[in-house]
Amino acid sequence: MRGEPLDAETIVSATEELLRRHGPDKTTVLDVARQLGVSHGSVYRHFASKAALREAVIRRWLDQVRNELAIVAQNFELPPAERLRALLTTMFAMKWAKAGADPELFATFRVLAAEHSAVSCDHVGFLVAQLRDIIIDGVAAGDFVASEPETIARAVLNATSRFHDPTHAAEWDSPETEAESAAVVSLILDGLRAR
Amino acid sequence: MRGEPLDAETIVSATEELLRRHGPDKTTVLDVARQLGVSHGSVYRHFASKAALREAVIRRWLDQVRNELAIVAQNFELPPAERLRALLTTMFAMKWAKAGADPELFATFRVLAAEHSAVSCDHVGFLVAQLRDIIIDGVAAGDFVASEPETIARAVLNATSRFHDPTHAAEWDSPETEAESAAVVSLILDGLRAR
Repeated sequence: MRGEPLDAETIVSATEELLRRHGPDKTTVLDVARQLGVSHGSVYRHFASKAALREAVIRRWLDQVRNELAIVAQNFELPPAERLRALLTTMFAMKWAKAGADPELFATFRVLAAEHSAVSCDHVGFLVAQLRDIIIDGVAAGDFVASEPETIARAVLNATSRFHDPTHAAEWDSPETEAESAAVVSLILDGLRAR
Repeated sequence: MRGEPLDAETIVSATEELLRRHGPDKTTVLDVARQLGVSHGSVYRHFASKAALREAVIRRWLDQVRNELAIVAQNFELPPAERLRALLTTMFAMKWAKAGADPELFATFRVLAAEHSAVSCDHVGFLVAQLRDIIIDGVAAGDFVASEPETIARAVLNATSRFHDPTHAAEWDSPETEAESAAVVSLILDGLRAR
């Protein structure tokens, strides 16, 4: 055991800092160990590979995203349609802000999403579950019609790919993105609404 | 003037063949001239650059796509909702088939789309116009409600990005893509329908 306590959280923070400065290709276990002034064995004790390290960084960021989104999704003062709109709009805004402010970290996230990594698939599962629960509430309230809430939730996520899928990040700084996303969300809500 | 007639069409065909075999990075004006057994000046007389050559190849492919889509969009035997569904479904199927059968050529198309080239922007303009015209027909028939058909047409194209935007090509061979696209199209049609 080493003298100073080296916990996973400290390693993740150091990795995030290196990813931010040097990008996903140039952040190895050795780089992280050097940054912390420890042996690479100390890092390997917590993270078996470079891939595990970058997954941990993105997982921590997505945990924050999920915490914020859960608050919006569970704001029961809003009717289901407005909760759905708020959830989607908040999700877009968090992605756009991250892609703009922290492009190297976002590039790491893009790689993980393209690889359909566990961390990325878990996140999609969370989003589908949040959307599904609001759709079920909307059906119960008589506001929405949806025979298969899980399928519809996935369709909502697919129909908004252009505004949250990291593969589209290069388009997000267009001045039209916000208005275009609002038009898609309105079209989706009209599709869900009971007639 | 050269002895043999060298027209633009012949050059475009030779370029397409080279793109198919070697991809967008390795197809230069010189390669095309060598393939045709002519001087590179003969090619430059028609196409000023490698970029102009690959644009011409993609423009020819997209001309064929547009011809097929226009036939579907103008099949007035179908009610507007079914014409819209047929137009979207045909557009997806043509993209998926091209990405699968001709990946190098499709990679060229992806580059042009990402660059927002004239050829790609013209194509988006065509798609929006086709969708808009069907939406206007649907409103006239009392089937659809849409206050701004052009804006809604663009929203329909944005909401289906995952199924036609070349940036998503790597996801299209998933066995779920067809069912997922059908769910999104149904959600969109529900959104357009008059209640």
